[in-house]
Amino acid sequence: MTANRRVLLSSRPTAVAQASDFTIVEAAVEAPEEGEILVRNTVLSVEPAMRGWTLASANYSAPVQLGSVMRALATGHVVESRHPDYAPGDAVTGWFGWQDYARVPASAVVRKVLETDLPLSLSLGVLGINGVTAYLALTELGLPKAGETVLVSTAAGSVGSAVGQIAKVHGCRTVGIAGGPVKAQLCRDAFGYDAALDYKAAGWTGQLDEACPNGVDVYFDNTAGAISDAAYPRLAVGGRVVVCGTASIQSWDPVPTGPRVERVLLMKRARMAGFVMFDWMHRYEETVGTLAGLVRDGRLAYREDVLEGIEACPDALAGLYRGENLGKRLIRLV
Amino acid sequence: MTANRRVLLSSRPTAVAQASDFTIVEAAVEAPEEGEILVRNTVLSVEPAMRGWTLASANYSAPVQLGSVMRALATGHVVESRHPDYAPGDAVTGWFGWQDYARVPASAVVRKVLETDLPLSLSLGVLGINGVTAYLALTELGLPKAGETVLVSTAAGSVGSAVGQIAKVHGCRTVGIAGGPVKAQLCRDAFGYDAALDYKAAGWTGQLDEACPNGVDVYFDNTAGAISDAAYPRLAVGGRVVVCGTASIQSWDPVPTGPRVERVLLMKRARMAGFVMFDWMHRYEETVGTLAGLVRDGRLAYREDVLEGIEACPDALAGLYRGENLGKRLIRLV
Repeated sequence: MTANRRVLLSSRPTAVAQASDFTIVEAAVEAPEEGEILVRNTVLSVEPAMRGWTLASANYSAPVQLGSVMRALATGHVVESRHPDYAPGDAVTGWFGWQDYARVPASAVVRKVLETDLPLSLSLGVLGINGVTAYLALTELGLPKAGETVLVSTAAGSVGSAVGQIAKVHGCRTVGIAGGPVKAQLCRDAFGYDAALDYKAAGWTGQLDEACPNGVDVYFDNTAGAISDAAYPRLAVGGRVVVCGTASIQSWDPVPTGPRVERVLLMKRARMAGFVMFDWMHRYEETVGTLAGLVRDGRLAYREDVLEGIEACPDALAGLYRGENLGKRLIRLV
Repeated sequence: MTANRRVLLSSRPTAVAQASDFTIVEAAVEAPEEGEILVRNTVLSVEPAMRGWTLASANYSAPVQLGSVMRALATGHVVESRHPDYAPGDAVTGWFGWQDYARVPASAVVRKVLETDLPLSLSLGVLGINGVTAYLALTELGLPKAGETVLVSTAAGSVGSAVGQIAKVHGCRTVGIAGGPVKAQLCRDAFGYDAALDYKAAGWTGQLDEACPNGVDVYFDNTAGAISDAAYPRLAVGGRVVVCGTASIQSWDPVPTGPRVERVLLMKRARMAGFVMFDWMHRYEETVGTLAGLVRDGRLAYREDVLEGIEACPDALAGLYRGENLGKRLIRLV
């Protein structure tokens, strides 16, 4: 059998893992044991949450062990199966890691990919954790109502771009915040945002006032930091903040300071709530179905940022935090 | 008719209004016009929210105009009525201000006081805004479940003391935070807290860990500031923060900084929400009935801190922020 190239976390970062924190090794492809499957990965995911998985500090999932394969979602095909639910050739997406081949227990599978009329890579983006997160976090915590204003940070990103479009499906006015004029333009042109602001531009908070004349009913937050500090004071009465990510904060040790939020939550009778996808896996299958329908109807566009080959893995996460991607970052293996 | 002594807001404070910001004047008692009533106030309320009402900055209620009577809840008896719903002798509680006599439209009445078997002053405390706030903010935003740990700041105060007891009624373990050993003792002895901590004592956050071994399911916050900064990291998964007051913050202009909350909200899938009583007035009457039942059953104790005479008004709010009261602060006029 061919060798299995694996990307190991080889040193423990204190902030965003850099290329030098990873090492690519070759290992033998291992045959599955009883209850396991062997998957040939075809596409690997790169996502902001990986930063948290590489850190030593307590997180909402266990840290990746040093010397082990970098935890990642991936999609591929079953090569060999010793589990009754899976057969060779099945397309599956799950926790297969940054490697060519994954010998995993069946429990590592998130789902079989059933949408064979759509690109397989969507299972890691708009029909994967990103899209499902966007849909459930927005609808379950954001509770968008027709006519409301939904403000989204990292609006051109894989979660944010879906949030904006799902909010439009709910009849909302959408305002995106993105880094740089290219991403802001992408928000308007590709993702249907009613307004999109470049937070790196001078005077952008004034534009935010113009774009949200009645305040912000839902702030879907993927960044924290200065963008959130501009959003909070603009919340409308009864506003909801969905805390989905904190991409602008390089390190939480020690916890950085910012303007206190208690008073604005009181004055606006607003609320903030954190969303972690792992709590909502029971809604995954149903939500992918909903999202696939929107993709087929042309109501849910997506962008992919595809890197080629496993050699691209080590720097892929750092590059994400440098903001160099336009759309969902993926690594294509075959 | 006798003169009406009135406490006017005579200068605009930038933080907590001090005695020098008020002036007591005498005026004629005015006869009610059509649709109005004349109330003889017997008890006046003093509460933390008054700080906000005196400030010039935007708030969840309009600022008190300079030169006008200080806005306050009060309870008294109808002396003269030109409104069909009220008759002389009726006990009423409402927005009657810091003055002996209030000539007000009937809309200033919050409710007739029907619990004539209980002290009239309770209408400004445990059977008033404070008790109703405690009940609705805890049950509607805090969603306490039996066996959960409920942490309360200003636990010996008029809202906090009721919160702890209502949480006990819901089967929760209650942990109070108060300023000084006397108030902490009061929490345990009078208000049934399972544990009570003095946040002024050295090492109190270590005691907080001991008192909340499974984390904090509901943090009922009346303070913000350093107490909240100790509470947030101790939230349990799925924790709820009820933001009910910000007593520890002297001024919000500029907004003070503190440790950012986004990460803990994410990691704990927790939420923070602000509660303002004015949004819940439709539940007032029903809730007073519930609370009165608890008082009669001996399940809801209260403490009053009664100042005598209208001369006590000007310094009463500043004294509240100096922490000199034990229990609901009131001013008795007759």
